[in-house]
Amino acid sequence: MTQTLFIAVVGHSGAGKTTLIEHLVPELKKRSYRVCTLKHTSHAGHALGDEGKDSDRHFRAGSDVSVFACPEQVQIKLRPKKIRDMEKFVLPFYYDADIVLVEGYRDADWPVKRILVASPADDSVAYVEQLGNHRVISVVGEKPDSPGTKWFHRDDYERIAELIHSEIQSLQCQPIY
Amino acid sequence: MTQTLFIAVVGHSGAGKTTLIEHLVPELKKRSYRVCTLKHTSHAGHALGDEGKDSDRHFRAGSDVSVFACPEQVQIKLRPKKIRDMEKFVLPFYYDADIVLVEGYRDADWPVKRILVASPADDSVAYVEQLGNHRVISVVGEKPDSPGTKWFHRDDYERIAELIHSEIQSLQCQPIY
Repeated sequence: MTQTLFIAVVGHSGAGKTTLIEHLVPELKKRSYRVCTLKHTSHAGHALGDEGKDSDRHFRAGSDVSVFACPEQVQIKLRPKKIRDMEKFVLPFYYDADIVLVEGYRDADWPVKRILVASPADDSVAYVEQLGNHRVISVVGEKPDSPGTKWFHRDDYERIAELIHSEIQSLQCQPIY
Repeated sequence: MTQTLFIAVVGHSGAGKTTLIEHLVPELKKRSYRVCTLKHTSHAGHALGDEGKDSDRHFRAGSDVSVFACPEQVQIKLRPKKIRDMEKFVLPFYYDADIVLVEGYRDADWPVKRILVASPADDSVAYVEQLGNHRVISVVGEKPDSPGTKWFHRDDYERIAELIHSEIQSLQCQPIY
């Protein structure tokens, strides 16, 4: 069994995190990986969408768990009583994932975690420094601004996917203690 | 441990199934039940909504599992490789439910199942007959049209919730063989 690699895509609001993930998913799937995603926000009161759809009407009415199922897709909306530890709560959903691309959620503690920094402007040095000893594998932006950290242009999805691929390969070669 | 009661709300398209569920959820939650829902469709190619939201963009990009998490709600979108048995697939999500209101999905085989027939017009007799030996607990509509079957007006949510409450009570009193 291989380990699941969690890639936290971090950066300021508007830095292009969602767009980066949107392009990395198909690039990684081309390489036959099982790719999953997580969007996390710490803001409360966020309404789950699909306004007007039957399953959404069930959920808005107060259903604790609302499932929508059709032949090839399933959607589950939950109101957990109290989530003490979000990482542990969502981990089972990723049990057979090769890669989980996590939007934001910078400080989450995943079993195997790497960081991609999305940086639209020339502010990534301070940002990378802030991350301390977290494992930043690359900065992605418009122009190189982070000496000492690997850098890719934000449109260079193929090479960013290759970097992730090589991270997975190196994980598989590591002995399991 | 109590058993989970599955109520299949069945009826023709436009019969008011979603509206009925929408009103029954809060009525049943008032009675302190853990109430869950399921909307099932056998039509393929159904797009899961939330157009434009980050987690939806992840899913549309091809993510196998897309999770959106905020402090009090979690949404999971999945593309299972192949669902052979939808009932078994969704059952774990309802592990601590008292009641699951199921929209449509008439012939699904749940452990403990009762049926509510939503009937807008005077066609419920034939409909109830079609259901054969399934356990119809009531017809809900605009005017009584089904001699031999309990009937409620579609706005009489409180009494319909009472009927469901009494079904649960009687389940709890049954010996477990």
